[in-house]
Amino acid sequence: MPKSHFQQIKVGAKGARSGSLKTRRGVVDTPFFMPVATRGAVKGLEPSQVAATGAQVLLANTYHLHLSPGEKVIKKLGGLHQFTGWRGAMLTDSGGFQVFSLSKVREITEDGVTFKDPKSGDTIFISPERSMQIQLELGADIIMAFDDLTGLDATARVRTEEAVKRTHRWLVRSITEFKKLTKNNASPPLLFGIVQGGLDKKLRAKSLEFVQSQAVDGVAIGGLSVGESRSEMHSMLKFLAPLYDSSRARYLMGVGDPIDVRYAIESGIDMMDCVMPTRNARHGSVWVTDTKRLNLNNAKFASDPKPIDKNCDCHTCVTGYSRAYMRQLYRSENPLAGSLASIHNLRYLARTTEEYR
Amino acid sequence: MPKSHFQQIKVGAKGARSGSLKTRRGVVDTPFFMPVATRGAVKGLEPSQVAATGAQVLLANTYHLHLSPGEKVIKKLGGLHQFTGWRGAMLTDSGGFQVFSLSKVREITEDGVTFKDPKSGDTIFISPERSMQIQLELGADIIMAFDDLTGLDATARVRTEEAVKRTHRWLVRSITEFKKLTKNNASPPLLFGIVQGGLDKKLRAKSLEFVQSQAVDGVAIGGLSVGESRSEMHSMLKFLAPLYDSSRARYLMGVGDPIDVRYAIESGIDMMDCVMPTRNARHGSVWVTDTKRLNLNNAKFASDPKPIDKNCDCHTCVTGYSRAYMRQLYRSENPLAGSLASIHNLRYLARTTEEYR
Repeated sequence: MPKSHFQQIKVGAKGARSGSLKTRRGVVDTPFFMPVATRGAVKGLEPSQVAATGAQVLLANTYHLHLSPGEKVIKKLGGLHQFTGWRGAMLTDSGGFQVFSLSKVREITEDGVTFKDPKSGDTIFISPERSMQIQLELGADIIMAFDDLTGLDATARVRTEEAVKRTHRWLVRSITEFKKLTKNNASPPLLFGIVQGGLDKKLRAKSLEFVQSQAVDGVAIGGLSVGESRSEMHSMLKFLAPLYDSSRARYLMGVGDPIDVRYAIESGIDMMDCVMPTRNARHGSVWVTDTKRLNLNNAKFASDPKPIDKNCDCHTCVTGYSRAYMRQLYRSENPLAGSLASIHNLRYLARTTEEYR
Repeated sequence: MPKSHFQQIKVGAKGARSGSLKTRRGVVDTPFFMPVATRGAVKGLEPSQVAATGAQVLLANTYHLHLSPGEKVIKKLGGLHQFTGWRGAMLTDSGGFQVFSLSKVREITEDGVTFKDPKSGDTIFISPERSMQIQLELGADIIMAFDDLTGLDATARVRTEEAVKRTHRWLVRSITEFKKLTKNNASPPLLFGIVQGGLDKKLRAKSLEFVQSQAVDGVAIGGLSVGESRSEMHSMLKFLAPLYDSSRARYLMGVGDPIDVRYAIESGIDMMDCVMPTRNARHGSVWVTDTKRLNLNNAKFASDPKPIDKNCDCHTCVTGYSRAYMRQLYRSENPLAGSLASIHNLRYLARTTEEYR
C-alpha cells in the first residue's frame, strides 16, 4: 500500500470526519465538493471565479477531453493546468461513466470497451491501460481507475456480479499500468480505485474490501446516483460507512444535492462531484436552503429587489444582484444569468462542506 | 442654450479632439466608446468586468427595457444603476432606432409612432413626450431626443426631407417635455439632439444647424452605419467635421469598427456605441489590429499556446488564456468564450479611443 496521503483530523458526533488530502498541487481540506469542468472549463466561469466560491479541486472529464482536443494537444500545451488556467488540484475521471452513459454502440470485452463517438462516428477503444495513459498525459493530480460501470437497467442487474469482478481485474491492470508509467515520476498523481456492486450490499462490501486491499490512494463509490431512489442510495451509504479504512480518502461520485451531500459526509465521505449545481443554475434554479430552491425565471421575482439569499456570502449575493435583475438576465437569455447563479450554487455547496471541517 | 457640459481640451493635428463631458455620474474623458447593454447588461459580462475594459459609459436600449421589465419596474427598483449594478454614467437611446428596425407593423403620424411588439403582439405608442417620460423614469445620465429615423431603402429616401423636418419638430417637443419633467430636478440628465438627413449633405448641414440652435447638451449623428458604404459614411463625417460648434459633445451612433472609430474621431466625433465588438466576440471574431481579426473557431488555433494578442493589456490576454483554450471554449459552446472575447474586443476599442485623449 502506498504511503497515506490522507490525514484524518477528527470524526464528529454525526459520523462526519474532517481531514486533509495531500496532492502534488497542495493540501486540500476535506470534506470538499468538486465543480465539474467537463471539457476543461466550468460553463460560464473563469477559473478564478470558481476558486472564489471556495472550490479546491476541479473535476474534468477524460472522455470529453480525449475526444477534443485530445490528450496529446493538452500535453503539448503544458497539461491541464496550463491549458485551463486552474491553479488548484484537478481530478480526472476514468472515462468509464461517459462510455456507458453517452455512447450507444459499445462492446465490452475483457480487454476493454470499444465504442463509437456519437459526434464523429469514430471507433474508439478504452481499456484500463489506455485510461491510465490518457489521464497521465492530461496531467491531473488525482486520477481514477477504469471501471465496468453497472447501471440500474434490468440487463445491468444481471451483469452486476460479472461487472464487479471485471472492475476488480481492471483495477489491478490500472495499478500495474499506473506504476509502470509513473516509476520515474518524483511526484505522481494520486490513484483512486472504484467500488461497484449496484444496490447489492454483499457485493458492495466485497468490492470495497477488494479495493481497500489494493495500492490505491483513495476509494471511490461508483454506480450510485444513477437513477436509484434517495433512500436506496442513503441505505447503501449507511451500510458502507463502518467498512472504510480510515487512512484513505473516500469519494462519492456524481452527488451534489445538498441533502445527499450532508448524508454522504455524515456517512464518512470526504469528496463529491456533480454537474447539478451548475446545470440547475443555468436553468434558473438556485438554493436558498437544502430543501428550498428558487426558480429565478418566475414572474413573481420581476420586481423583487432582494438578492438570491441575503445571508449568503457568495459573490453574486454580496455584490447585490437582485432577483429582479437575475430574472431579467434569464428572460433576455444573457449567459451572465447562468454564471452568477452558478457562483451562488457552488458557494452554497462549498459552504455546506465547510461546516464539517 | 444650457450651460456647456463639454470641455474641449485640445484638437490634435489630425482633427481629433480630446475633452471631458460632465455627467451627473462624474466626468468622463472623450473620445470614448460605449458598450451596449441592450436589456441592461452586456451579454456574459458583469458591470465590473465591463468597467475593467476602460469603458466609462454604458448604453442601454429604451425600446427593450420599456417592453421588459418596463420603466415602472426599473424606477421602483431604484433606477437603471441600482437595477444593473453599473456605477458609471449611462446613456439610453430614444427607442426610435429599434421601432424602425425591429417592428414590422408601424404607423407614423405627426403625434408619434404606433407599432406592434413582435413578441407579445401588444400595440405600443411612442412619441417624443413618451420617450422623454420613459427615459427619465429609467434614470439614465444622458438621454436622446426621439427622432424619425431615415433608413436607406427607396421609400425612406423619398421620406428623407419630410423625416428630417419631423425630427426637428420632435426635437422641439422632446426639449419641451424634458424641461417640464426636469424643472424641479437639481441634477437632470444631459439631453442630446439627433441629426438626420440620410446621405444628403445639404439636408445634413441644415439638420445639424437646427439641432445646434436648440437647447441640447450634445449633438448625435443618427442614420449612418445603417447599410451605406464605408466611403459614403466617411464622406459624410468629413463633410460635417467643420460644421460642429466646439462647445457640445458629438456622438456618432452605431459605429464600432476600429477603422470607422478612428475616422470618426479624426472627424471630430467624441462618442460612439455599437453592438459589434461584443456580438463579433460571441461568434469568435477578435481584433488583433484594426484590419486583422482572428476567428477563434478556426482549427489552426487548436494547439496555439499564444494569447489572442501578446501585446494586449486586456484581462483575457494578460491572464494568459491561449487561443487553443479559447477555441476549446467555442467548440464546447461554453459562454465563457464570448465573455473572454468580449473583454478583449471592448478593451481593444477603449484603447483605440484612449490614444486620442
